[in-house]
Amino acid sequence: MFTLYSMQRSGNCYKVRLALAQLQIPHELVEVDILQGQSRTPEFLAKNPDGHVPLLEAAPGRYLAESNAILWYIAGGTPLAPEDRIERAEALQWMFFEQHSLEPNLGAAWFWLTLVKGGRELQLHAVEDWTEQGYRALRVMDKHLESHRFFAADRYTIADIALYAYTHVAHECGFDLTGFTHIRQWLQRIARQADHITMDHVTDSMAIAE
Amino acid sequence: MFTLYSMQRSGNCYKVRLALAQLQIPHELVEVDILQGQSRTPEFLAKNPDGHVPLLEAAPGRYLAESNAILWYIAGGTPLAPEDRIERAEALQWMFFEQHSLEPNLGAAWFWLTLVKGGRELQLHAVEDWTEQGYRALRVMDKHLESHRFFAADRYTIADIALYAYTHVAHECGFDLTGFTHIRQWLQRIARQADHITMDHVTDSMAIAE
Repeated sequence: MFTLYSMQRSGNCYKVRLALAQLQIPHELVEVDILQGQSRTPEFLAKNPDGHVPLLEAAPGRYLAESNAILWYIAGGTPLAPEDRIERAEALQWMFFEQHSLEPNLGAAWFWLTLVKGGRELQLHAVEDWTEQGYRALRVMDKHLESHRFFAADRYTIADIALYAYTHVAHECGFDLTGFTHIRQWLQRIARQADHITMDHVTDSMAIAE
Repeated sequence: MFTLYSMQRSGNCYKVRLALAQLQIPHELVEVDILQGQSRTPEFLAKNPDGHVPLLEAAPGRYLAESNAILWYIAGGTPLAPEDRIERAEALQWMFFEQHSLEPNLGAAWFWLTLVKGGRELQLHAVEDWTEQGYRALRVMDKHLESHRFFAADRYTIADIALYAYTHVAHECGFDLTGFTHIRQWLQRIARQADHITMDHVTDSMAIAE
């Protein structure tokens, strides 16, 4: 059985929890509180030298990091992961866009403004940068959704899951989605997919990292 | 035939040019000078609303963005793209790491210090941030290479190509790789692969964007 090291309020971890739920894949969940330094202990760094969650123990002692790579691993062979050559590349295009252009901005806003709630390390220039770059990424997404119901392969895939994670909480950390009609309709479409769970959903088998 | 919109001195574009050369895939190259605003013209934005190169015209009118997604597309079905489920996920892990943790730092240093050479928009805090985060990413890579010859699948793959692009010029934009023994050996290993081309290599069929 897979073990997922995860933090409940992390969008990157939510992606994997959502896909596991929709694919009905049994797993154990180990809660890692990164705000308490639990992803930087010697024990955790031995599993993932990069010190990030989510982290999937795919086989005993074999650890896989990076939320979007984990999505490809767990969804491989299911309709959530397009395997047609051009459809796979288009799903990947949006998932790389997510990690390069969306998550560093909306994810940073979520982390600093909603989880940490400010703090000495937060600098004004950072807020300005992620606001400008975050809106820029949202405009690119909205433009695509003008003429597409989903991001790739004309169906619900892990590309949608990846982009949904931080976009669906953007309004909680300073982004105004009022003008982004197509994104707001897409958010509703994703939340209506079968076996959808919310970020707050608690899995029964959750353990806490020591 | 593929058309690749590319800028000669961009690391992200170099990845694709290198893979196309090693896979001996015929292509036309259109040089887009992003420093002259050529990736933000209405004509280019109609092809890629995100306004970035590289951009591959995979089929007439069908454009694929994001360097690492393009790598998966062009290398699909060849030994450069691992298709085994866990090996594919491990290659993807390092390619998402590259776009999230390495390229935003080493790529930014390359862009501002080597291509733009400073300028009013460059701020001191940005240099400090990308230096700290860039060295952090390099330490994670060096740790992996302590016990691995390549990044995934125990062979040369597109994960190596993705990570090579900005790492091999890091010393030209302020990063000191002296202490990174394993990275330096790996850089030599990559440069020795069959049909390797350097970033400066000029393809015969290059056109210039208008």
